[in-house]
Amino acid sequence: MDLKTFINKEQDKPFVIVQGLGFVGSVMSLVVANAINGDYAVIGVDQDTEAGRKTVDMLNIGVFPIVADDPKITEYFFAARERGNFFATVDPVAYSVADIIVVDINLDVQKSTNDKYALTDYSVNLEPFTAAIKTIGAYCKPEALILVETTVPPGTCQNVVTPTIKTMLQERGLPVDKIRIGHSYERVMPGPDYVDSIQNYYRVYSGIDEASADAVEAFLKTIIRTDEYPLTRLGNTNATEIAKVLENSYRAMNIAFVVEWSRMAEEAGVDLYEIVHAIRYRPTHKNLMLPGMGVGGYCLTKDPLLASWSRANLIGGQGKLTQSETAVSINDQMPRYAYEFLEKRYSKSLNGAKVLLLGVSYRGDVGDTRFSPVEFFYRCLINAGAVVSTHDPFVYIWHELDLIPHPVLSEILRTQHDIAVISAGHSIYRKEETIDLLLNCEPMWIYDTIGLLSKKQIADLQQKHKVIVLGRGDL
Amino acid sequence: MDLKTFINKEQDKPFVIVQGLGFVGSVMSLVVANAINGDYAVIGVDQDTEAGRKTVDMLNIGVFPIVADDPKITEYFFAARERGNFFATVDPVAYSVADIIVVDINLDVQKSTNDKYALTDYSVNLEPFTAAIKTIGAYCKPEALILVETTVPPGTCQNVVTPTIKTMLQERGLPVDKIRIGHSYERVMPGPDYVDSIQNYYRVYSGIDEASADAVEAFLKTIIRTDEYPLTRLGNTNATEIAKVLENSYRAMNIAFVVEWSRMAEEAGVDLYEIVHAIRYRPTHKNLMLPGMGVGGYCLTKDPLLASWSRANLIGGQGKLTQSETAVSINDQMPRYAYEFLEKRYSKSLNGAKVLLLGVSYRGDVGDTRFSPVEFFYRCLINAGAVVSTHDPFVYIWHELDLIPHPVLSEILRTQHDIAVISAGHSIYRKEETIDLLLNCEPMWIYDTIGLLSKKQIADLQQKHKVIVLGRGDL
Repeated sequence: MDLKTFINKEQDKPFVIVQGLGFVGSVMSLVVANAINGDYAVIGVDQDTEAGRKTVDMLNIGVFPIVADDPKITEYFFAARERGNFFATVDPVAYSVADIIVVDINLDVQKSTNDKYALTDYSVNLEPFTAAIKTIGAYCKPEALILVETTVPPGTCQNVVTPTIKTMLQERGLPVDKIRIGHSYERVMPGPDYVDSIQNYYRVYSGIDEASADAVEAFLKTIIRTDEYPLTRLGNTNATEIAKVLENSYRAMNIAFVVEWSRMAEEAGVDLYEIVHAIRYRPTHKNLMLPGMGVGGYCLTKDPLLASWSRANLIGGQGKLTQSETAVSINDQMPRYAYEFLEKRYSKSLNGAKVLLLGVSYRGDVGDTRFSPVEFFYRCLINAGAVVSTHDPFVYIWHELDLIPHPVLSEILRTQHDIAVISAGHSIYRKEETIDLLLNCEPMWIYDTIGLLSKKQIADLQQKHKVIVLGRGDL
Repeated sequence: MDLKTFINKEQDKPFVIVQGLGFVGSVMSLVVANAINGDYAVIGVDQDTEAGRKTVDMLNIGVFPIVADDPKITEYFFAARERGNFFATVDPVAYSVADIIVVDINLDVQKSTNDKYALTDYSVNLEPFTAAIKTIGAYCKPEALILVETTVPPGTCQNVVTPTIKTMLQERGLPVDKIRIGHSYERVMPGPDYVDSIQNYYRVYSGIDEASADAVEAFLKTIIRTDEYPLTRLGNTNATEIAKVLENSYRAMNIAFVVEWSRMAEEAGVDLYEIVHAIRYRPTHKNLMLPGMGVGGYCLTKDPLLASWSRANLIGGQGKLTQSETAVSINDQMPRYAYEFLEKRYSKSLNGAKVLLLGVSYRGDVGDTRFSPVEFFYRCLINAGAVVSTHDPFVYIWHELDLIPHPVLSEILRTQHDIAVISAGHSIYRKEETIDLLLNCEPMWIYDTIGLLSKKQIADLQQKHKVIVLGRGDL
């Protein structure tokens, strides 16, 4: 089927166009195509690049482009195919039929660091984002609703999206007073609750005017379980844009905070994980985070910078969000520290050492490797001359390194290693079968970088192996 | 009754001596005297100073020295007096009968700041604390349990208390192997749940050896509701000492974090309180704090520094807790910013302006004025030549300023003011009666420094008054 045929076939339904078919847009498309309270025709539009065309082709022939552990992805994808209300394309002409356009493209930060990986500078280039908005403006109906879901520097909807769209409409000789522009953010979590993280989520939304906010609200009510997860309308788009980056900065900062305490715990010969668990009993301290090898993923590594950048560059303010910027810098240095911790304690040279990395994704029980701290750790080991193998049951291809982690733990543990590093928090590594497998290996070093092992497991493993734990004093 | 008579009379009971009769020790004495699962004779020992003697005299004649809104204080105090198992003294000979000594004295930090009130330096003087421990060592039985509850720089029990006590015992020709030393912290919250904050609390404890930890556990089980609030034993005293200062640093840091976002919200013309409330829906963000005029109280203003100081000075580590130190510095500057916010926006000169401060304590619905940020704010106003009056129904005497706030709002509002500042989060200020009272005043400025007023209340007040809110863009 081609785009025109699809549009003709579905012409009686409202058209929702999702711009960007990455980690958010692809799943958002499925959620809209399976709206709990509406019947939409959905067109996913990706960039006309090799990668974009590949994504589109996969979707149209029935292969979902992201490997995920959420069975709902397959269920929703097949339901949409059966109904025939989802189509993917790289042709921007799709925007011309849109009643609603959902913007789910990336907006990146360029960082500079010193040789310690501390942040020295960074910049935000709004050009690619603005270009994508221009494409919408070149085709959209003058009464469309444009809903920005991308995490943007606060001020973007008001100072970038709105003037861009209005200018384009004017150039096309169309009225500018009927366009609706709003902002609402998701918190997509690739993993077993991928779909739920969109559908069952306390959405915060806003519009550039009341009509826009009303239009966003009406749309969200058709796709989100707003009875259980009530919507919150904020006063303007600056407010929701700030809310999103504040959320992520809060987490980044809480990790950075505990990183320094982790160093102190090592010095004082105590177990930080034990301390954090004791403190978390209290409701006022439930969000206290645990340290680990590092902070990865697409959001926490850049959102505090997007926010800080916008103060001087978009909202006409002064100064920076010092604490939030510092958090990124502290977190960026975590994998280096994790590597140095091993280097200092390991009694032999890492040159020629056989090292097994258990887990390469940035998050436990999830296969997402974007900005995984394990990547830096891996490169450090390679630079030191170590022979590195990897295991990860969730990562089929480690794209950033073009490498296929071994999927079966019992198999890879048949080879003798000098060091096994628990480098991602997959729950399999704390299972008793895994401890038994490790106890069957010849003596080696076991390095837990995220406090995954229990005290008892460490005691058991220590009878045969040398165990070291980041954030714990010497064992 | 004198000390000797009391000791003779109660000689069949285990003696618990509480060292320090301040905000913690005085109430801890009551909790022990009313042990839920034990029958102790309790002696509270304060310093032999004018203030200490006054406290002791008040307690012995039946006047509890701290005004509190918790009815349990009176109830427990009278119950103990009726049973006759509580006595106060400044005579250190009391330690000689102690089976258990609970240390509840202060340990302060000396700060230096620049003219912006940013932290430039600080020091910790362990001398007064060590002297108090020496007094115990000069009298205690060699098999006593010494339970330190004071918030100390991590490493103190191991490197200060234990060697001090053992040296003193040796000098007295007594054995040193039977002494028990432990650490466990409370989180006393003066206010309506004063007693509960000791009794119903998830205690974390430790000992310098297993016998000490066992002794602490046995004692805590007699005074804390450990069935509902389970105890957590940590590996050594460094761990519990770190846990306490980590808890408080976490809160201080979370406030400092949101302070910067508060400035950004003002610049972007949005309402930070609204944003924070929207984000807090999510369980991962429940601990997100609200900004305000400043951070007060005895703990959050110094504990991050105690912790950072101990890294280099007590536990033999390196470096500082940068983020935690920065948090103190950011928080210390909050009242200055709150003052400047008013100064910039107020259309006239503050010289001669009649300003009413609504609330002078550091916390809502509580009368505790220790390190209250309102003190600094008050002094700024006075320096600017303003005529300042104060209202606070919880503070009978504002000791730091030797000043009596007016207790009745309707009375003080009969006088016309130019500016009314909501400076503490007492719930009375958000009541409809208060809004009505304010609406009856002649036009003035109302400055909400803690986001206490609702949107509707602001709208109502704006019909007559000029309202400004810290952390909100222009209204």
